[in-house]
Amino acid sequence: MVVKIGILGCGTVGSGLLELLKNYPEIQVQKVAVRDLPKAHNLGLLDTALFTKNPEEVVTNPDIEVVVELMGGIELTKKLLITALNNKKHVITANKDLVATAGEELFAVAKANGKTIFYEAAVAGGIPIITNLKQSLKGNVIKRLFGIINGTTNFILDQMKRKGASFSDALAQAQELGYAESDPTNDVDGHDAAYKIAILASIISGKKIDMTKIYREGIRNISQADIKSAEKRGYAIKLLAIALNEGDELDIRVHPVFVPKEKTLANVNAENNAVMIDGSAVGELTFIGRGAGSLATASSVLGDLLMLMNQGANISSQFMVAPHTEEAKLKSINDVKNPFYIRVSMHDKVGVLKDLGLITERNNANVRFIDQYEIKGDSALADFMIDPISEKSMKQMLKEIQELPSIKAVESIIRVLDV
Amino acid sequence: MVVKIGILGCGTVGSGLLELLKNYPEIQVQKVAVRDLPKAHNLGLLDTALFTKNPEEVVTNPDIEVVVELMGGIELTKKLLITALNNKKHVITANKDLVATAGEELFAVAKANGKTIFYEAAVAGGIPIITNLKQSLKGNVIKRLFGIINGTTNFILDQMKRKGASFSDALAQAQELGYAESDPTNDVDGHDAAYKIAILASIISGKKIDMTKIYREGIRNISQADIKSAEKRGYAIKLLAIALNEGDELDIRVHPVFVPKEKTLANVNAENNAVMIDGSAVGELTFIGRGAGSLATASSVLGDLLMLMNQGANISSQFMVAPHTEEAKLKSINDVKNPFYIRVSMHDKVGVLKDLGLITERNNANVRFIDQYEIKGDSALADFMIDPISEKSMKQMLKEIQELPSIKAVESIIRVLDV
Repeated sequence: MVVKIGILGCGTVGSGLLELLKNYPEIQVQKVAVRDLPKAHNLGLLDTALFTKNPEEVVTNPDIEVVVELMGGIELTKKLLITALNNKKHVITANKDLVATAGEELFAVAKANGKTIFYEAAVAGGIPIITNLKQSLKGNVIKRLFGIINGTTNFILDQMKRKGASFSDALAQAQELGYAESDPTNDVDGHDAAYKIAILASIISGKKIDMTKIYREGIRNISQADIKSAEKRGYAIKLLAIALNEGDELDIRVHPVFVPKEKTLANVNAENNAVMIDGSAVGELTFIGRGAGSLATASSVLGDLLMLMNQGANISSQFMVAPHTEEAKLKSINDVKNPFYIRVSMHDKVGVLKDLGLITERNNANVRFIDQYEIKGDSALADFMIDPISEKSMKQMLKEIQELPSIKAVESIIRVLDV
Repeated sequence: MVVKIGILGCGTVGSGLLELLKNYPEIQVQKVAVRDLPKAHNLGLLDTALFTKNPEEVVTNPDIEVVVELMGGIELTKKLLITALNNKKHVITANKDLVATAGEELFAVAKANGKTIFYEAAVAGGIPIITNLKQSLKGNVIKRLFGIINGTTNFILDQMKRKGASFSDALAQAQELGYAESDPTNDVDGHDAAYKIAILASIISGKKIDMTKIYREGIRNISQADIKSAEKRGYAIKLLAIALNEGDELDIRVHPVFVPKEKTLANVNAENNAVMIDGSAVGELTFIGRGAGSLATASSVLGDLLMLMNQGANISSQFMVAPHTEEAKLKSINDVKNPFYIRVSMHDKVGVLKDLGLITERNNANVRFIDQYEIKGDSALADFMIDPISEKSMKQMLKEIQELPSIKAVESIIRVLDV
């Protein structure tokens, strides 16, 4: 069976895909739309006549059966893919922003045209998490999902831990290596992870997720002192994307977490990604691999394409109907309960411990440990960890602590994974 | 869409499947063949009239579209499944022994009848490794595959490490917890892992594997001294099933390995399973989860069943045609190269180091480290590790070491993962 495809975009992933397609003569590239023709010609991966600057030539080409979208962006790209679907082409995309924000609209157009949208490459690069959730694990209710799904921040946190680097030095190194962009906001403030967890949460819940309601906190405030305190207590700090399926409510968030070292997620190093799911039947299942990169991401695109070819006309309903119509009820961050790690700087004098003790007692926060250290002059630091309390209670407690005359500052507060 | 199924066997996995099927009214169980009727009736999972002692009633029942085989065994089971296929039923099986030894015959009968055999549950319990290799990762040449695919031995090695238990104490505990059988040979001597790696190797190579040619070494000889030496040097000892795809040859083996602690596989604890693949496009990708257990294994069976239902009449060719016809050329263990860890007990006297040095030099074995310790009276122990040499060279070197008058005994020799 031969399939004729068109490709929108020929950057990192697009050129990786063309590289892989060398081994697949049955997949015939008809047209590739690019921004920069000379650059595309110089790749030497395809007959130069097959490149065009006009993406309309791809999405309306009557010979093309599948459009592979690797150009990124939202508005223009959405228009192009709607044209492709209306022209009876299947769509494969790696565009997380688009699927997360316009999934409902796109899936409706696909359904109306009897076509399908595959998007394995949109989340966690080479890790086939979406296909697994939709196929092999379909017999499970996914109760909890934890992801390290932003490679840039994982690299930065890993460098801070291994090399003792500051956040800004580790970021600079990530930028030098091409893992982070010159404006790193999308990665370090958790936007990228939020798009991806929205997609995964929509799959495990079968509902539409309002991106703007996802609680999101990045890693800019993580300091060497945090990393060292975590290490000392047997934790690693990871930026986790979390989706907890609580039946009528979904608890979705992205924030740094103290992860106990014995957990697999604590040992996911460098720029790797990982997704841990807890299924009603399968229990805990973890996938670890490359979350980005030319060939790894192209592997997911090619996997989608080969599945599409294999399933052919009878393309299975679980891919076609992504029920993005009903909106999920998201749990308010104020009601979410977590254990917390807190570090305060304080005046080293009689009574501070009693003050902290009274405040934690008043807020029903059971103290797991407290560790006072680095006493210099009249100044000292204290780390402590408390059993799960709600964010609302935590904020109240924090306010009371900050008002204590003996406290100089709350230096850090980080949620702790409790599993 | 409704599907009518029959089940052979209702033990751990069978009862787990019936439990999961409570949520799937569209999957109708027509008949379940069991050995012990009263026991099956007591499960309370199904109308007692649906149980039979006669498996023929399942495989010839005209209403049944899919036969799920969870009874185990080879000869009788093979006959039953051939009857099922010839009666135009799809087959789903969790039977690794059967797929590994009679796959060729069964797949041929399935093909002749236009039916398919799914066997996700045969390897690594709840981990969907087979479906991933056949679908999402299909665009990859799998160059290397490393598996911790026997939960019993992983549990035993983990207990030895955490609790300082001897092999026999850890085995006794595994037996008490139901992880190991009263005759533990199948697990601890690597037979179970060999069946599973044969199946995985046949998938990544597209060839038939002769089970009898797989090199296999269990964990009976692993001692506390080995575990401690590994720990001291930054390794964990794991029973790995290995398949290296070297183009014209396959290198397949099962044996204990020193795994560097920073590798994900070194941190797979308790009775968990893991499979790490190294794909030409995706790079390293690791799956970690439950390798056994009622619901976890049933999750894989149900996943197969749901996929079968979704793909229906057009069931994809990659599942139907398992090309088990051409026999793989297996690399002889004598030609396999590995680094080795070696421990010797020796007389503590002048010249021993020179003797060892001469022998390693003569055999082209570059020494990575040597550590002499536990000197008592005239006796001492020495650990050393050498760079990769062939098994043949290693045996020759070992012989020379054993013949040294200063050496009392070679206490241990274990291969090292070199990645």
